[in-house]
Amino acid sequence: MAKHQKNSGWTTTAAEALRVGRVGPIAEFDPGSTPGFAGDKDAGEKLLTERGEALADLQEILFANGRAGDHRSVLLVLQGMDTAGKGGIVRHVGGLVDPQGLSIKGFGKPTPEELDHDFLWRIHRALPPIGRIGIFDRSHYEDVLPVRVHNLVPKAEWEKRYEVINQFERDLVASGTTVIKVAMVVSKAEQKARLTERLDRPDKHWKYNPGDIDERAFWDDYLDAYQAIFDRCDNDTAPWYLIPADKKWFARLAVCELLIGALENLELTWPAADFDVEAEKKRVAELDD
Amino acid sequence: MAKHQKNSGWTTTAAEALRVGRVGPIAEFDPGSTPGFAGDKDAGEKLLTERGEALADLQEILFANGRAGDHRSVLLVLQGMDTAGKGGIVRHVGGLVDPQGLSIKGFGKPTPEELDHDFLWRIHRALPPIGRIGIFDRSHYEDVLPVRVHNLVPKAEWEKRYEVINQFERDLVASGTTVIKVAMVVSKAEQKARLTERLDRPDKHWKYNPGDIDERAFWDDYLDAYQAIFDRCDNDTAPWYLIPADKKWFARLAVCELLIGALENLELTWPAADFDVEAEKKRVAELDD
Repeated sequence: MAKHQKNSGWTTTAAEALRVGRVGPIAEFDPGSTPGFAGDKDAGEKLLTERGEALADLQEILFANGRAGDHRSVLLVLQGMDTAGKGGIVRHVGGLVDPQGLSIKGFGKPTPEELDHDFLWRIHRALPPIGRIGIFDRSHYEDVLPVRVHNLVPKAEWEKRYEVINQFERDLVASGTTVIKVAMVVSKAEQKARLTERLDRPDKHWKYNPGDIDERAFWDDYLDAYQAIFDRCDNDTAPWYLIPADKKWFARLAVCELLIGALENLELTWPAADFDVEAEKKRVAELDD
Repeated sequence: MAKHQKNSGWTTTAAEALRVGRVGPIAEFDPGSTPGFAGDKDAGEKLLTERGEALADLQEILFANGRAGDHRSVLLVLQGMDTAGKGGIVRHVGGLVDPQGLSIKGFGKPTPEELDHDFLWRIHRALPPIGRIGIFDRSHYEDVLPVRVHNLVPKAEWEKRYEVINQFERDLVASGTTVIKVAMVVSKAEQKARLTERLDRPDKHWKYNPGDIDERAFWDDYLDAYQAIFDRCDNDTAPWYLIPADKKWFARLAVCELLIGALENLELTWPAADFDVEAEKKRVAELDD
């Protein structure tokens, strides 16, 4: 990993710089900061292009191994306030790799069918296939975020979920899925600016949801709900990272770097051929043109 | 559409140039040609970058309309000889747009569960959601390609499938899905070169399948099976295009252009807001920073 970090603008790895335990309570977190990265926007954008190629290479090796019988996958869980830029991460970081290697799932308000099952039912069904990078745009953590803030189920019910989630994630990791959890944090001022832009531009109206303003009134409750998640569901098995999201370029670079780190930790190499290479070379050489 | 074509290197639209009825029988088709395009590789690659942005914009409008209740979608069906570059199209053309707007499905040898249903069962389950661009890497046409070449079901059975497929596609189009079908044609010499490369490079071994050489022995039978498809399943509702695939840059440019044309034909505009824009502007303006 060290070779990628040298002279890159990073003063430490993204994983170290952004782990929730390192950056402190969310209520005191600066959404305009760039923890661990000393470069500016130009440097960050230039680096993202370069690192995108590294990510694409690693994704292809993961995919190739999945084809060859390896059972590993990666799951990126994206959470964040409205307008924090989760969709932008999917587009601009997910967009760096072969889309065949992605498994993207957005979780909205549960459907009646989903509500007719336990809260993890829809999550299980959406887990990435082996060899893929799964991206969850919202996730099972919704069931302890808006659900907790608005008491959509009794407190006794959502209280139990933290441990259920930990157990679920332990099982998932034990089955070969690397789990990275990312909370994107935007400032109130930046959220206001982004809502304003969505209203000012007709090509952004479809992204505007009047309900976002209603939710904004619960800002501090959401910070509490996020902090509870970090306190109870951050662990080395399935770590949580805080991504300052006021600077989109940094959020993208940081998530790209976290994915690269996770893939590098798998220490994958190109899978060995399951056929006799020399014999096949001979067969191919003998083919008519 | 005309404005995009001007000075672009295209002498006619890709849809006109590549429609199977226009380019003639597959057995006489030149996989190294670039029908309708007068530019060289440099011009083609430059144009693809530019047109990729147009495709991304159109995809976002399609997606926004899907969110706003419009029921349309696009389905790109990819067929082709082994090594023709279907995966490259998904990666390099699919990769031009927001991966959230894609719905990619590869169809391999049917599973026991799939074989326990009619041949369209797995196809129905994989159709793109509204607002999405679906890409099928292989498709229901496998059921009249290898199945026909090797008589995996009795002839009386596969003979019926052409009309079943036509009916299926008519229903699909009537439901709001634009269907574009693309057959990628590689020459025997180029296939040999690509197989050789896969064997020479350890990072390509995972893409090599000894069975591809066995299939190559049935080359002319496949050409016949493709021609039967074109003769019986090409129509204005769900047209077939022949893509010469020896030049990867051209195949990518051509498929990108076909997708752009299909999306432009939908004549989509940004969906109107379903809320009171001025009232919301006022609400946002009054928010604390």
